[in-house]
Amino acid sequence: GVFAVKKPCIELKEMSYAERARLPKIHPLASKLLNIMAEKESNLCVSADVTSSEELLELADSLGSQICLLKTHIDILKDYTVEVGQKLQTLAGKHNFLIFEDRKFADIGNTVKHQYEGGLYQISSWSHIVNAHAVPGPGVVKGLSAVGKPLGRGCLLIAQMSSQGSLATGEYTQAALKMAEEHSDFVIGFICGEKITQRPEFIHMTPGVQMQSGGDALGQQYSTPEEVIKDKASDVIIVGRGILAAPDRLKAAEAYRKSGWDGYKQRLALNQQ
Amino acid sequence: GVFAVKKPCIELKEMSYAERARLPKIHPLASKLLNIMAEKESNLCVSADVTSSEELLELADSLGSQICLLKTHIDILKDYTVEVGQKLQTLAGKHNFLIFEDRKFADIGNTVKHQYEGGLYQISSWSHIVNAHAVPGPGVVKGLSAVGKPLGRGCLLIAQMSSQGSLATGEYTQAALKMAEEHSDFVIGFICGEKITQRPEFIHMTPGVQMQSGGDALGQQYSTPEEVIKDKASDVIIVGRGILAAPDRLKAAEAYRKSGWDGYKQRLALNQQ
Repeated sequence: GVFAVKKPCIELKEMSYAERARLPKIHPLASKLLNIMAEKESNLCVSADVTSSEELLELADSLGSQICLLKTHIDILKDYTVEVGQKLQTLAGKHNFLIFEDRKFADIGNTVKHQYEGGLYQISSWSHIVNAHAVPGPGVVKGLSAVGKPLGRGCLLIAQMSSQGSLATGEYTQAALKMAEEHSDFVIGFICGEKITQRPEFIHMTPGVQMQSGGDALGQQYSTPEEVIKDKASDVIIVGRGILAAPDRLKAAEAYRKSGWDGYKQRLALNQQ
Repeated sequence: GVFAVKKPCIELKEMSYAERARLPKIHPLASKLLNIMAEKESNLCVSADVTSSEELLELADSLGSQICLLKTHIDILKDYTVEVGQKLQTLAGKHNFLIFEDRKFADIGNTVKHQYEGGLYQISSWSHIVNAHAVPGPGVVKGLSAVGKPLGRGCLLIAQMSSQGSLATGEYTQAALKMAEEHSDFVIGFICGEKITQRPEFIHMTPGVQMQSGGDALGQQYSTPEEVIKDKASDVIIVGRGILAAPDRLKAAEAYRKSGWDGYKQRLALNQQ
């Protein structure tokens, strides 16, 4: 008789952060971040949306033990000096986290080169990771890469946004993904609401995370750590007001770190049965 | 017999800048800009992409007579101080032009509020006009408007981009248009490659303009002043390298002003026959 040919069953086993850090094609900076996440048992990025340099540095020092990544908006500090960038780097070394300046570059290549490297902030000199919108087309990545790649920096592309009525959906998200795949020597992952690619070399990071779902008056929409990590299969939770507005920020950061890590362990367990 | 009912023939007669400045629903800042354009016979915006404050101010002073608008990237200046913003305002008064900080805000409403008002640059304190990407959804406009509207400022939405592979096309452009219509108390027009709405209250501004068509190594694509104003029916040409890289910048600015104005006169003539 004839035997049916069995197709090989490719189980997309969920890899751990540590396993992904060792992938042959992984970007060195992505590998470093994944190792930090595994070592510190933290997929928590704190969004340090404060307007005083002293408060930013205090935050980095006091929450440093809980986070894998510190997200900054350097251009909202009222008293930035060059020393702030240097001190952030020192604290990143002390507590073993990376720095992510959430600049959302969104201009043509020639302009973002200057914005990344120059000006008062000299972002490329102190921030391990930056992000960019995909809307200008691939030139934005090429311009940033010309500055950041020689320094070992990495970039996240904004594939989706947490704000109401965002246009980063559908084909736009797919175009961002394609742009990342074509520049994987510099793009290490995505800002997104959910996992958008099976390629384990890319890291997914999700903003708009709070313990309670909801929103603000200007269109921000919140998901919980568990929804983001377990259900949406993202890798990193980005938490701002949930920690900054808490009466005890360290305690809140610990709770988010634990909640994000629990979500990750549950996801691994679910996919390894 | 039966007479065919004649539909009223609505001729969309091309209005002059001066006529549009007097429209009942025009935003005061748009009216001011259109009046400047008519008075100075200039639809030229110079993109002052320089990295020294001294050179920026020198440029504003020497080219001021030729332009309706000075476009800045304040965050590429290596030596910005608060005085730069103040001096730009003085020069804008002296030469009768407006200032447009090309910040391309592209974050959620709560963040852009801080970026627009605060930080070292305090953009809202000296720039008449800023621009924003539509990708975050309407929250970005609401956040900026909360800061800029009380100050009489205005905003341009980026509906199209001049860079290769831009995602600001089709439905994205239409969504930006809709966002502008719903916030016309703050949005005064568009960054675009061509006229995208018949509403004469909105001002269309087009970057990527040079006397010769072509491009750069990072995906920028160029159109000529005539193509932009006469054929594409945009209102303002934004010229950077075509003037900055010229051996005689004033002479180049005069040539661009004249070329843009000729395109405008031709468009008016064509549509008033």
